[in-house]
Amino acid sequence: MADNRKVWRLRKRPDGDIADSDLEFVTEAMPVCGEGQVLIAVDYLSLDPTNRIWMSDMEQYMPPVGIDDPMRGGVAGRVVESRNDSFPVGTVVSGLGEWATHFLGIPPFVGALPVPDGIPLETMFGSFGGTAWTAYCGFLNICDPKPGEVLVVSSAAGAVGSLVGQIAKIKGCTVIGIAGGAEKCRYVTEELGFDHCIDYRSQDVGAELDRLCPGGIDMNFENVGGDIMEAVVSRMRHFGRMALCGMISTYNDGAPETVPNSWTNILMRRLKIQGFIVTDFAAQFAEASQNMVGWWAEGKLKTREDVRPGLENALTALGDLYTGKNNGKLMIKVT
Amino acid sequence: MADNRKVWRLRKRPDGDIADSDLEFVTEAMPVCGEGQVLIAVDYLSLDPTNRIWMSDMEQYMPPVGIDDPMRGGVAGRVVESRNDSFPVGTVVSGLGEWATHFLGIPPFVGALPVPDGIPLETMFGSFGGTAWTAYCGFLNICDPKPGEVLVVSSAAGAVGSLVGQIAKIKGCTVIGIAGGAEKCRYVTEELGFDHCIDYRSQDVGAELDRLCPGGIDMNFENVGGDIMEAVVSRMRHFGRMALCGMISTYNDGAPETVPNSWTNILMRRLKIQGFIVTDFAAQFAEASQNMVGWWAEGKLKTREDVRPGLENALTALGDLYTGKNNGKLMIKVT
Repeated sequence: MADNRKVWRLRKRPDGDIADSDLEFVTEAMPVCGEGQVLIAVDYLSLDPTNRIWMSDMEQYMPPVGIDDPMRGGVAGRVVESRNDSFPVGTVVSGLGEWATHFLGIPPFVGALPVPDGIPLETMFGSFGGTAWTAYCGFLNICDPKPGEVLVVSSAAGAVGSLVGQIAKIKGCTVIGIAGGAEKCRYVTEELGFDHCIDYRSQDVGAELDRLCPGGIDMNFENVGGDIMEAVVSRMRHFGRMALCGMISTYNDGAPETVPNSWTNILMRRLKIQGFIVTDFAAQFAEASQNMVGWWAEGKLKTREDVRPGLENALTALGDLYTGKNNGKLMIKVT
Repeated sequence: MADNRKVWRLRKRPDGDIADSDLEFVTEAMPVCGEGQVLIAVDYLSLDPTNRIWMSDMEQYMPPVGIDDPMRGGVAGRVVESRNDSFPVGTVVSGLGEWATHFLGIPPFVGALPVPDGIPLETMFGSFGGTAWTAYCGFLNICDPKPGEVLVVSSAAGAVGSLVGQIAKIKGCTVIGIAGGAEKCRYVTEELGFDHCIDYRSQDVGAELDRLCPGGIDMNFENVGGDIMEAVVSRMRHFGRMALCGMISTYNDGAPETVPNSWTNILMRRLKIQGFIVTDFAAQFAEASQNMVGWWAEGKLKTREDVRPGLENALTALGDLYTGKNNGKLMIKVT
């Protein structure tokens, strides 16, 4: 057992884009395992849009990370010391942990991660864990897709968006993605099988939506917010449903000054707009993983992980999420 | 049978508040009943916030009234001439008709109105018809109330709002109304049994909501829109539900310049916002009327109709809806 761990600590709350000095990468004494706790050696750290939210003291769905506290993140790792009989040494676990080589895990914030034969840990954790649950549970429960309906999903090449679109294809929907850049659009249509993909960097999203869905949009799985969201909501069909998963375009800005005026659309077209956080659907996680892995094994669904080596690179890598420089589910390989 | 009818025709689309010259009250030849049609003598004309929407060419849930066409309205009346075997002369009917003494009704836009013994036609039509369906179906289906939850309903002394709050009390909820003026607030709390009522004309709605619901708001049945809606949405609790029934404060303005920025609330608190139109729930209308009449007969629910005599007064009376000068369900007694 090493005597020390490495950990990222939040030193101050970012103002706009995250600055290098907002977090500090430090070496410190290994934490001591208390009763009921387990010491976890981290294999993979998940980098997610919500990390930026946790750094702010804006209203959010769990307390923000405290100043000088370890940065919070989704992790997968192995128990290396245990004072909890349910999690013996060697257990592979995942859950909410720290941006660290090691941390003290407390169930239920971490739990055993079953990894079926033939699936790499990075795929199981990165694409069939929280990311898959977000896509599967949010889309199916809130959008309630029917065959033939039209879905628009933003961040279509991203970890969640790419899965949502593929699930919608499995359910018989027409799927239009929105992504940034020709290569991502190619990936989304040619490799993932979406019907169309709009390149928001080079195309007029509204005009393309008018062209591609002249009858309107039944469902929106929203990851981006702002102007792109408004272009979609204003083209929704009567009884349309929007699963509001995230608004990554706004996280570095605080509350946007101008906001989509969708209230008249919501009323006149009887839209349903519903926000969610993946943990709302915990009872469905096992079903979600099982179905997603099943579809993957049948060749109906592809995943892509963008794994960067070295915990010291976590902050730089996170920045790529907000500029769209990642390709697939972004993770750090820690050990 | 009279040779002539009187009818209000829309002459031009209002710009802001409705002007007297926007509609014209004319006498014209009695329409001739075609195959399948019935001629209806109108007893009561319902005046509703949505009438203003129908006069505009804004986006809406049915086509606007055409220029020079008869003004559309909810009506109750009797068949006085029939070329439809399902609706013999003398049948009491209600549905979508015209601001007129007589009009040609075409099923299914009009249908038989069963009036139980002991209930006046004006109560059955005004308070247990479309108004009751709007309150009952919108509230129960979208808000899905549980005992002990907190509901805020705007236009609390209005036709729909007063019923919504009473249904919520029957379901065991805490009910806070918002209404304009001390007398309406007194009516809502003392006569209808709401727990509290905020007078938006003399009180700070946000501060009162903070005081009355320190733990937040579970449900909002929204009739008003604008600043009052924002005050409510920004105080909603996690997993809150809003039934968006109407936004009367905005109908005379066109699209408001400033709109509530509720997107972050919707996401972080996992709110559900859903617009609806009463006709979405047609399959539930019979159940709604039956339950509402039953609660009324048991003394659990009160209604109030504000009946004004004379079709020639319809336009003036309608204006009172937007300034809150009506007391209960506003109708014109035509005959």
